[in-house]
Amino acid sequence: MTIKEVAEILKQHDNFEILTHNYPDGDCLGSGAALALALEKLGKRARVITTERAEKFSYLFENLSEGDFTAEYIVSVDVADEKLLGKYEDVYRGRINLCIDHHKSNVITADYKYVDPDSAAAGEIIFELLPELGVEPDKAIADCLYTAISTDTGCFRYTNTTSRTLRISAQLLDLGCDSAYINKVMFETKTKRRLALEREVLENMVFCADDKCAIIYTTKRMTDGLADDETEGIASIPRQIEGVKMGITVREKESDYKISVRTNGDVDACAFCRQFGGGGHAAAAGCSMKGSLGEVLERLKSAAEQTL
Amino acid sequence: MTIKEVAEILKQHDNFEILTHNYPDGDCLGSGAALALALEKLGKRARVITTERAEKFSYLFENLSEGDFTAEYIVSVDVADEKLLGKYEDVYRGRINLCIDHHKSNVITADYKYVDPDSAAAGEIIFELLPELGVEPDKAIADCLYTAISTDTGCFRYTNTTSRTLRISAQLLDLGCDSAYINKVMFETKTKRRLALEREVLENMVFCADDKCAIIYTTKRMTDGLADDETEGIASIPRQIEGVKMGITVREKESDYKISVRTNGDVDACAFCRQFGGGGHAAAAGCSMKGSLGEVLERLKSAAEQTL
Repeated sequence: MTIKEVAEILKQHDNFEILTHNYPDGDCLGSGAALALALEKLGKRARVITTERAEKFSYLFENLSEGDFTAEYIVSVDVADEKLLGKYEDVYRGRINLCIDHHKSNVITADYKYVDPDSAAAGEIIFELLPELGVEPDKAIADCLYTAISTDTGCFRYTNTTSRTLRISAQLLDLGCDSAYINKVMFETKTKRRLALEREVLENMVFCADDKCAIIYTTKRMTDGLADDETEGIASIPRQIEGVKMGITVREKESDYKISVRTNGDVDACAFCRQFGGGGHAAAAGCSMKGSLGEVLERLKSAAEQTL
Repeated sequence: MTIKEVAEILKQHDNFEILTHNYPDGDCLGSGAALALALEKLGKRARVITTERAEKFSYLFENLSEGDFTAEYIVSVDVADEKLLGKYEDVYRGRINLCIDHHKSNVITADYKYVDPDSAAAGEIIFELLPELGVEPDKAIADCLYTAISTDTGCFRYTNTTSRTLRISAQLLDLGCDSAYINKVMFETKTKRRLALEREVLENMVFCADDKCAIIYTTKRMTDGLADDETEGIASIPRQIEGVKMGITVREKESDYKISVRTNGDVDACAFCRQFGGGGHAAAAGCSMKGSLGEVLERLKSAAEQTL
């Protein structure tokens, strides 16, 4: 389907629920909030469904009405798989009307699907949807979309960044988006506790596969008292080390381990994670594992030895 | 003067020497190399004068002829002050014909000066000079200018990034510049020794002015055996800490200390450094100091207490 058809469908409905994925990031929250803002500009009602809204993302929702209403139309944004709806999986599985996403690995079931893997972020798709909806973007929408695009591209550093990404972002700057604030919050602010965590993580780093793979981990003890966004981004640490083709981050959660895999694209992170029931992109993917930390590390090490 | 006039002057001359600043960064090297490539495309000869060329920047010079010739016209690029010519200061002081720069603090003496503080990088000026010179940019020039612009904006993260910066960079991507390689080398690669240095730096960090200032330092012992570019970028560590308005990095060099000051723009880093004979931008500036490490730290601490 075309982006024009996506817009036509949205125009025909009202009372939207916009689904985002669990462990929500800047792209799903920013894209979801921007779409909701656009729909509200058309006089419609829209609510963004989130498993959590970290404090640092609160500005995305400041200009939204949301509120209580019975949902008529369900749109998922940046969600590649129903499993990623987290605690909402059972509520929405089989009920998604429209899926808007940029993950090649998308396997969601929906009445209509618009998946564009050439978009660096779902935010790019929402930006291109606005003129089709007849919505003039304003600063609030620009802030949401800049958040979406900058976070999913590591502030234009990752290989998914295209000239279209930069041109759209230039337009967002011209619309007055507060890139200085957003960059500062998303990329330039570390708490002292976060710095202490980084130090401990570096001390425990494990190398394998002839140093082509580096694995770091955080335990519940290490991240106790830290907000989720304080532990974010450490997944990029191991991949940055010279000679490392695959960087793996293991984070102990309540009942399992969350694994993030980052590569420079030569090694398929998505394929690596799929063998453990996960997915994602070629350069950044994730999965979950149960067991002891020692077992999890051993499974990852032997899988890495096989892959590399 | 206008950019068109800059182009006219360059067209009228031949056998250029292009000066860059000491402790050369991606902007002066990338802008210098791009200008030299453009002049060579016009059938002229040009040589980039550099105090050093770190291995990671070697690709900038791969497509240049340079070679031996008697210089007729001297152009400085990204050099705010003759002092910053380092070991070439005495050779070129008073001989600079054309100065192209983007530092507001520029105090260079030259026959002609084109200083545009609205450009995030000198590379933006060189990009806009190309059509005036009648030079069609190619991949080699695009690689140089992408290096210049991305390094001077922290890969589009710093507040100097404008929509023009992003639009120019989009064009560079369309010209085939290898942003994936450049981003990887400039922003995503750390040696194990660099990681060890970061750990030690974090352990020694000093806070002052009610934690609004954080100071880190490296000694010759800590950086022994590390290349200059392995110690680069640590200057951004202290400024990133929550609540820190001014981050100061002290690096022990052969006979003095090199001080880098980073702020979020609220505090004038340039003014802070000027009291010690340095200069730079509002958010990023530098100076040098002599004395013992303890003395240097004390002088910086009391200046920070006064400023904040």
